[in-house]
Amino acid sequence: MKIAVLPGDGIGTEIVAEAVRVLNVLDLPFEMEEAKVGGAAYEAHGHPLPDSTLNLAKASDAILFGAVGDWKYDTLDRPLRPEQAILGLRKHLGLFANFRPAICYEELVGASSLKPELIAGLDILIIRELTGDIYFGQPRGRRIATDGHFPGAEEAFDTMRYSRPEIERIAHVAFQAARKRSKKVTSVDKANVLETFQFWKDVVTEVHKAYPDVELEHMYVDNAAMQLVKAPKKFDVLFTGNMFGDILSDEASMLTGSIGMLPSASLNAKGQGLYEPSHGSAPDIAGKGVANPLATILSAAMMLRFSLQQPEAADRIESAVKSVLAAGYRTPDIWSEGTQKVGTREMGDAVVAAI
Amino acid sequence: MKIAVLPGDGIGTEIVAEAVRVLNVLDLPFEMEEAKVGGAAYEAHGHPLPDSTLNLAKASDAILFGAVGDWKYDTLDRPLRPEQAILGLRKHLGLFANFRPAICYEELVGASSLKPELIAGLDILIIRELTGDIYFGQPRGRRIATDGHFPGAEEAFDTMRYSRPEIERIAHVAFQAARKRSKKVTSVDKANVLETFQFWKDVVTEVHKAYPDVELEHMYVDNAAMQLVKAPKKFDVLFTGNMFGDILSDEASMLTGSIGMLPSASLNAKGQGLYEPSHGSAPDIAGKGVANPLATILSAAMMLRFSLQQPEAADRIESAVKSVLAAGYRTPDIWSEGTQKVGTREMGDAVVAAI
Ligand SMILES: CC(C)[C@H](C(=O)O)[C@@H](O)C(=O)O
Ligand SMILES: CC(C)[C@H](C(=O)O)[C@@H](O)C(=O)O
Repeated sequence: MKIAVLPGDGIGTEIVAEAVRVLNVLDLPFEMEEAKVGGAAYEAHGHPLPDSTLNLAKASDAILFGAVGDWKYDTLDRPLRPEQAILGLRKHLGLFANFRPAICYEELVGASSLKPELIAGLDILIIRELTGDIYFGQPRGRRIATDGHFPGAEEAFDTMRYSRPEIERIAHVAFQAARKRSKKVTSVDKANVLETFQFWKDVVTEVHKAYPDVELEHMYVDNAAMQLVKAPKKFDVLFTGNMFGDILSDEASMLTGSIGMLPSASLNAKGQGLYEPSHGSAPDIAGKGVANPLATILSAAMMLRFSLQQPEAADRIESAVKSVLAAGYRTPDIWSEGTQKVGTREMGDAVVAAI
Repeated sequence: MKIAVLPGDGIGTEIVAEAVRVLNVLDLPFEMEEAKVGGAAYEAHGHPLPDSTLNLAKASDAILFGAVGDWKYDTLDRPLRPEQAILGLRKHLGLFANFRPAICYEELVGASSLKPELIAGLDILIIRELTGDIYFGQPRGRRIATDGHFPGAEEAFDTMRYSRPEIERIAHVAFQAARKRSKKVTSVDKANVLETFQFWKDVVTEVHKAYPDVELEHMYVDNAAMQLVKAPKKFDVLFTGNMFGDILSDEASMLTGSIGMLPSASLNAKGQGLYEPSHGSAPDIAGKGVANPLATILSAAMMLRFSLQQPEAADRIESAVKSVLAAGYRTPDIWSEGTQKVGTREMGDAVVAAI
């Protein structure tokens, strides 16, 4: 078994280093190989996703990913910007199924913007389609408009699209995930406006016939954005397309108040997966040793469970994280009066010790 | 001066009736004419936006709109569904500038999901472009895919697009609105993924040169969805395209906890406007006399200010609403211990009395 380790930019290197220490202490039969990605790869090789990195990723069973991006790359041509690395990995490895749990840890209820009673015990699984939709649809570009409000004017455009098999496979993933949980799926669309999402709704309804034991609810994306704020605990599995999933999964993780705790997994049809924290590269705190490594450590646990068939090792990591939280260790992002403020390294130490 | 009164479906008729009473008591020189729209128009005339209604709207200086929609129309062909009426009015009248304030009323701080300190004093103005983007972009439809992940499969697609003049005019609206407020604009895009929104960002940056006194910040839509939850008071004018605006304006209004209080205005280049509450038709409580009419009454105030050049009358309505809140009147949606629960009609009575 082989793991590609891609720390990336900003706090990526610091947090991935702790996850690697945790993996090493488990003494499992796999090999890790590190490569550059994002801005770091651009600096070293002139491209955010060099062939060497992509080939390593393809040849691995799993990818442990940190984060990419920094404001200093904002003026680069789009194909050279750090985030193209993550889009490229999703595309070239076919990582169509993104799992983003939005969980509120008991000890961290106070960190949420929401009132404790609305958020305590929250446990939503967001499943986002990750290789289709307007993210990759062609054609796209700039041109002179030939119709619309201002024919003759310069315009830019993109294509939103979903095919039947794309919707079917992610719907199966969502219904199967729901079977292991509360058997309730909310499919989020904008069928009242978009052809793509009327089709989404139709296909999801068809696929649902094979899962009569799972309850299916359809919800418009604007309403979902509201219901997440109003009554987040009403959701169990929330599943949607790439664009809406980008927005709603970030909204949901911020609701928990502890986005620094939330892992994610992106899987392809072969079970290969990319595992990364839900938060970004946070260039403002990079190099300061204060970033929270727990989302990355928990991503490593997801990796052991989903791609490396090591569920017990995954359990060990997750229990260790719970115990360091119970013991009061907190990085600054989740710190509150009466708990012990620690840095990235000390948090990693605490998890290693707990294992 | 002429006002088209379009109550629509669900609670629409009840809440618009109260706004009309409030307008009548002001004894101003305008005429009101009522017409059916949405499901009600479909029942009566076989179309959600019959020509008679559209012509009345076109011939009026302003439209007072209730709400449209009911689950019972969900199975109709898309062009006959109630929401096509609102999309049609936006399109045919060119109502490109949507104003949606997200305000937290002092007396209603407790109704929010968010902790009081995060929400007290909140006053965001969301400006959403309303006639472009993927809502109206052509081509759209279903077809057989010729490329992508599954060539040969059935697919559905839509076109996202914005032309330079479309972006320019809404950017001017946003910067001018900011000049009357805190001179701070957040333009929300997804320039890291979409051609349309890279163009949006470029054009907004150019238009900004004419407003050196206004501060401009660019933010990705996923980040905006998070920051609204984390620190909503950091926003002042938030402006964005049609699709992102649909999602973020609903998220923001739900943050306030009192969406039943929030008006909206949709204006065209001539100053004609459609005024409607930010909430929907709420078929579950329709006909029960419990809906909150204040968002509609406040929409009528916006109408007086923006389209009918009656700013003092607008002030009178807004002061009356503040005083009924201060006096403790509450419809069920905003009721809390120690305040007086009233119905739609009594709330209208209270506002009329306060005027
Ligand atoms: C960096 C960006 C392209 C990416 C996305 O939009 O998918 C990110 O926001 C995410 O959610 O992983
Ligand atoms: C009813 C629907 C078409 C509409 C929209 O998506 O614009 C509504 O959600 C709104 O925000 O006014």
